[in-house]
Amino acid sequence: MSISKVTIINDPIYGFITIPNGIIFDLIQHKYFQRLRRISQMGLSYLVYPGAHHTRFQHAIGCLGVMQKALKVLVNKGVIISAEEQEGVLIAILLHDIGHGPFSHAMEHSIVEGVSHEHISTLFMEELNIEFNGSLTLAIDIFKGTYKRSFLNQLVSGQLDMDRTDYLKRDSFYTGMAEGNINTERIVAMLNVKDDQLVVEEKGVYTVEKFLVARRLMYWQVYLHKTGIVAEQLITRVLKRAKELSANGEELPSSTALSFFLKNKIDHKTIKQSLDNFSQLDDYDIISGMKEWCSHPDFVLSELSKCVINRDLLKVKIKKKPFNTQKINKHTEALMERRKLTAHEASYFVFTGVISNQGYNYSKGGINILLSNGKIVDVVKASDQLSLKSLTKEVVKNYLCYPKARN
Amino acid sequence: MSISKVTIINDPIYGFITIPNGIIFDLIQHKYFQRLRRISQMGLSYLVYPGAHHTRFQHAIGCLGVMQKALKVLVNKGVIISAEEQEGVLIAILLHDIGHGPFSHAMEHSIVEGVSHEHISTLFMEELNIEFNGSLTLAIDIFKGTYKRSFLNQLVSGQLDMDRTDYLKRDSFYTGMAEGNINTERIVAMLNVKDDQLVVEEKGVYTVEKFLVARRLMYWQVYLHKTGIVAEQLITRVLKRAKELSANGEELPSSTALSFFLKNKIDHKTIKQSLDNFSQLDDYDIISGMKEWCSHPDFVLSELSKCVINRDLLKVKIKKKPFNTQKINKHTEALMERRKLTAHEASYFVFTGVISNQGYNYSKGGINILLSNGKIVDVVKASDQLSLKSLTKEVVKNYLCYPKARN
Amino acid sequence: MSISKVTIINDPIYGFITIPNGIIFDLIQHKYFQRLRRISQMGLSYLVYPGAHHTRFQHAIGCLGVMQKALKVLVNKGVIISAEEQEGVLIAILLHDIGHGPFSHAMEHSIVEGVSHEHISTLFMEELNIEFNGSLTLAIDIFKGTYKRSFLNQLVSGQLDMDRTDYLKRDSFYTGMAEGNINTERIVAMLNVKDDQLVVEEKGVYTVEKFLVARRLMYWQVYLHKTGIVAEQLITRVLKRAKELSANGEELPSSTALSFFLKNKIDHKTIKQSLDNFSQLDDYDIISGMKEWCSHPDFVLSELSKCVINRDLLKVKIKKKPFNTQKINKHTEALMERRKLTAHEASYFVFTGVISNQGYNYSKGGINILLSNGKIVDVVKASDQLSLKSLTKEVVKNYLCYPKARN
Amino acid sequence: MSISKVTIINDPIYGFITIPNGIIFDLIQHKYFQRLRRISQMGLSYLVYPGAHHTRFQHAIGCLGVMQKALKVLVNKGVIISAEEQEGVLIAILLHDIGHGPFSHAMEHSIVEGVSHEHISTLFMEELNIEFNGSLTLAIDIFKGTYKRSFLNQLVSGQLDMDRTDYLKRDSFYTGMAEGNINTERIVAMLNVKDDQLVVEEKGVYTVEKFLVARRLMYWQVYLHKTGIVAEQLITRVLKRAKELSANGEELPSSTALSFFLKNKIDHKTIKQSLDNFSQLDDYDIISGMKEWCSHPDFVLSELSKCVINRDLLKVKIKKKPFNTQKINKHTEALMERRKLTAHEASYFVFTGVISNQGYNYSKGGINILLSNGKIVDVVKASDQLSLKSLTKEVVKNYLCYPKARN
Repeated sequence: MSISKVTIINDPIYGFITIPNGIIFDLIQHKYFQRLRRISQMGLSYLVYPGAHHTRFQHAIGCLGVMQKALKVLVNKGVIISAEEQEGVLIAILLHDIGHGPFSHAMEHSIVEGVSHEHISTLFMEELNIEFNGSLTLAIDIFKGTYKRSFLNQLVSGQLDMDRTDYLKRDSFYTGMAEGNINTERIVAMLNVKDDQLVVEEKGVYTVEKFLVARRLMYWQVYLHKTGIVAEQLITRVLKRAKELSANGEELPSSTALSFFLKNKIDHKTIKQSLDNFSQLDDYDIISGMKEWCSHPDFVLSELSKCVINRDLLKVKIKKKPFNTQKINKHTEALMERRKLTAHEASYFVFTGVISNQGYNYSKGGINILLSNGKIVDVVKASDQLSLKSLTKEVVKNYLCYPKARN
Repeated sequence: MSISKVTIINDPIYGFITIPNGIIFDLIQHKYFQRLRRISQMGLSYLVYPGAHHTRFQHAIGCLGVMQKALKVLVNKGVIISAEEQEGVLIAILLHDIGHGPFSHAMEHSIVEGVSHEHISTLFMEELNIEFNGSLTLAIDIFKGTYKRSFLNQLVSGQLDMDRTDYLKRDSFYTGMAEGNINTERIVAMLNVKDDQLVVEEKGVYTVEKFLVARRLMYWQVYLHKTGIVAEQLITRVLKRAKELSANGEELPSSTALSFFLKNKIDHKTIKQSLDNFSQLDDYDIISGMKEWCSHPDFVLSELSKCVINRDLLKVKIKKKPFNTQKINKHTEALMERRKLTAHEASYFVFTGVISNQGYNYSKGGINILLSNGKIVDVVKASDQLSLKSLTKEVVKNYLCYPKARN
Repeated sequence: MSISKVTIINDPIYGFITIPNGIIFDLIQHKYFQRLRRISQMGLSYLVYPGAHHTRFQHAIGCLGVMQKALKVLVNKGVIISAEEQEGVLIAILLHDIGHGPFSHAMEHSIVEGVSHEHISTLFMEELNIEFNGSLTLAIDIFKGTYKRSFLNQLVSGQLDMDRTDYLKRDSFYTGMAEGNINTERIVAMLNVKDDQLVVEEKGVYTVEKFLVARRLMYWQVYLHKTGIVAEQLITRVLKRAKELSANGEELPSSTALSFFLKNKIDHKTIKQSLDNFSQLDDYDIISGMKEWCSHPDFVLSELSKCVINRDLLKVKIKKKPFNTQKINKHTEALMERRKLTAHEASYFVFTGVISNQGYNYSKGGINILLSNGKIVDVVKASDQLSLKSLTKEVVKNYLCYPKARN
Repeated sequence: MSISKVTIINDPIYGFITIPNGIIFDLIQHKYFQRLRRISQMGLSYLVYPGAHHTRFQHAIGCLGVMQKALKVLVNKGVIISAEEQEGVLIAILLHDIGHGPFSHAMEHSIVEGVSHEHISTLFMEELNIEFNGSLTLAIDIFKGTYKRSFLNQLVSGQLDMDRTDYLKRDSFYTGMAEGNINTERIVAMLNVKDDQLVVEEKGVYTVEKFLVARRLMYWQVYLHKTGIVAEQLITRVLKRAKELSANGEELPSSTALSFFLKNKIDHKTIKQSLDNFSQLDDYDIISGMKEWCSHPDFVLSELSKCVINRDLLKVKIKKKPFNTQKINKHTEALMERRKLTAHEASYFVFTGVISNQGYNYSKGGINILLSNGKIVDVVKASDQLSLKSLTKEVVKNYLCYPKARN
């Protein structure tokens, strides 16, 4: 009967995911990791897709589950992967997103300007490595891509890694957008390793095509959904305004964790010493802050906050070409007039920007197909169709946001 | 082409749910309803089932979708239901849970003691009825059960109502607990009305049996899961302690909304005048409060908060018979000794209680089966098996919580 | 890269099932096994549930997949199972239904009277054991229950075996009857072995309850669906009539394989020497025979055949109590009069019978629950509810079939 | 309570499909339609995907269900469709495949050479129209495309019709090939009508892209799977050989229905008078024939039959370029030598051919997108990506089949 204890997590998508006792279990128990339970995977997308309340915690556990399967497939195919390497790559995928803050994209453009979540993930891993007496060293090397066997890094972060494999499926499941439902099991079953590079076996080429198409569709229909963009822009602007007011000495009601980031300028250099503060910041600080600010005397801060909290968003238009400056000015001036605002204040409500997506980027390594004759070619060449070539073209769209007439 | 605008919501379970323009759409837009986006349907159950982050907003919309189908089935079977009645019952189901606060069960035993969410739902509906110039009058009558046609109320709140039909399916979906996955479509298809009573056609008897069994299993495996119980008890005790400290004049860091409830005694009488305060309270206030309290000097408050926030819960035992007082005392005394606590303080960490579930309660109206000979009998009698009879027996279990040795 | 070749089968329910090279692969390739592709799992149930066209081949492969998972779970829990035992039990489950003929229940009451499919399965295994030089000896011992380690036999044929686990899930999937959708993964995860007996861990008790309830519901709503019963009775009677006519020297158009069984009396003793003939008999022989017989001069044979082929079935009534003889006689006499038939001929169209189901039979071994204190009890005792006790009661119903008035 | 009786069919994919009483119900009951229960939707594909045993009956019912939804969507959007038109288009889709024989592609190249199933469908509809006193006249006009309102025909047979919408989803479901799982509900929700042309609303453009990609993938991974091609070629050749032997006066054991087609030359002209014979032909005749022929003295006939029956297929190679004649000859000569065959006989076992697929053919009408500015453009132009353009390129592949060395 039971000899080694394992923990089983019930995942709505994959069923049971088994967590082996030991460092992986301990990392999951750690408060740095538990905080991912309080960070939504898709930010404010639930304002568009009410089902999308899943968290980065679930995604990280899901990635762990998919990576376990991938390792099993590769080992069954005769790829030699040592126990240390297996543990390393499992830790690397488990922690790959640990540096995400709440509403990451919004934060990176407001209160922790210019600091990528990958950088913060590395900082967290290094911190945990000290706490766990160096047990994460190999995982960090794999995560950074400095470990000699490239396929391990490619499993964590590549054009067809276990991260994307999980998030496309998971986001599709929770949004109810069946279009993005990729066949994780089949993708994983087609993986192999040749000369220490991750490859997909030739018969998996259609599955890869499907994966790329699903990814592109999820971008346009979900991640770049116009309502989601407005919401993200609004939260960015709320935080910017809050920071601006704080810089002017205003004491805004906010949690201890958020206060720290409103009062201090955090950038690529200073983030390391503020890591503990960062670890205390999650969706609850941001949403609670906005709830308080709904009744703040500053018009910009309170209006923007109410827009998000009551889901009473700005209007948005999408076009291929940039919007006409005159048209934008007309909206700005009307608002200034109607609400007695300065141009700076009005710029929080009327603004334009671009969104873009490139389905497949083979300058960044591409997806390698192992032909039955043993040669390796990029999937763009292995595909019968030229369609993938066109996926590599970047698509750019412009958006314009402005308030409803009554505001 | 399109004449009347409708809004379509993408639900991961049912697919598209159509929201007709008009009062139903406007009610959904209302900030009282939008706040349900910030109230988790299953409280802290996500600490056991990481997928269970769905909200009361989704459940309410889901109920609306199921009710639309039920109405269609009944009308197709020749039941006369006027347009007003249809709108009324749709509003009633949409708003039936609008009175839920964050972590309702915990709140009802701490900061809004003894006030049921049904009562608060009625208050909200009455408030909205004023705002919407009396358009909710019929919905309120249906909700309260004072409208003459009983089946409309039974669709909203009975032993086989659209509320239960949705939440069992939804909670099963998000927890990944396939056991609870009932066949909503089939249940709805079997409904009929006889003498203004809701009935299930005879051939639906197995489906009803299955529904009752699924419900019972969801209770024991999900709603009354021992880890979930600990979490709920912990959050109840955090709030009790916070209220206790506030009563002693301590100013705890907390949101405006939560502060109000910590400082004021709210009961069945006073809730009405505090409705606006209540409408501002959601999961974010409670979780954010606990995050702040993790570093509060009061040992009880900070320890309990950390237990929840870092998911480092108390130990729990479940037994059919009550726990031996001596055993409980031993745990209490050990803790008092180890942590230098008073008996009152220790009682926050060592406690016992009962959980119970009655699968089917036919004193409360039961589920009526319409036999093919036109007679109506309770499902307990229509079933070939006596098994349902046993479902009606209440099952009671005892739990004991106490801290891990190291605490 | 790939060292040992494996075959992967895509199963709509479980995804990929991996077939290891070696004897298991070779058995699947064998024509005795391939014939299962031509034997429908649910007989004529597709006349009720049009989706139910799955075959015994799929079920056998599915059982293999579930057994692989069960073995992995048990081995992970520290149960020692040798490579030979693992192969043995996999072969046993793969071949457990190989003795099924087309429309088994109908055949067992007509052309191979009184010979059970289990007996024929054993004969096939013994035949294959000769062909495979004794490699199936252990599998046969496990199948028969003569191998010393009982749990291996219990995995193949017990109250909670991998056979039932697969067929309930599979039949539920293909009929669209969500009620029967059991949680295979969870059942398997809860298995363990104590003193060489198969047990379910205590926390799995609700899952077992659910399994038993699902099984009972599938019986009443699917396997014993009244339309399905009529169809099965019709096919039994077609074959009986065909045999009767053959016995009278009539040469009926039929396939070589079917002719053999029409002309020869096959029973428990003679089946062994007719095994090769039996191996050539499948759904195609029976259905093709009936298609020919639609235009046969014998009224009984052609009418019954047309009923099945054109899905123009008899009427059927279901009652708890036996049908009144007078009522039956009235139908018989009306038909005799209307169609100028003898009483014997009319008996093919007007008949009565009983159907029964016992949800759980613990005289046959039961399902053992391993309590956390190490004791083993029957699930009926481990369950909080008495409901299981009532499941053990046999439910009996009577049916009456008779032609529509116009016939 | 119930006023108009309806029949409900349980579909594993869509759940309940409601069949209204009246002509649609009567057509389904007709033996011409019931025979579709005996014709597999995907021919011998179950030799590759064991789950793929679904029938043309299920597909036709599924199409009916999808069409009902499409009509509801269009009517809700204000498109005027009369009750007669609705019934007409429902009948048209229900019967669109009624002209399929068993293993259609194989038959069209062997025993009913050069007669398309669309032609036979029309003949059946005309026959039924007589039987139903002209009630199918409008349905036939819609089916043929001669009815004035084009969108009705486009719903039945176009680049995005309800036929394709159902079969892609259904074949994906039964094969377990998740890649083909299109979002039927979303496709249907995006339909509209402009100037009597079927259009897709602009926001549905990604869904259309996904549909086209899924379709292409299903072609290459399922419909044109190399093992499936061999099986289809084998069955074509079995039938050709049988016809050849019959032409030489050989009396082959076969069913009455099949005999007729072996003995008579049926073409585009003579099919009409043989329609009743055709209506008696289904999978059971073909498979039963081959089972008998396994022991026929003609080497070619028996070997080919055994290949299919025992799933012991020929080897197959796939290449972009045509196979080298020398290589083919080598295989042919080796076989002639090994088995003492003539070149003609050997040609049944060694042969080459081409398979091709064009993802999207806009010369045949295309898929029209209704832009938000009211203009209509082809989806190839509405898509951001050029990828669809490449979908329109025909892809051609060559295959070579030859026996395993031991044969």
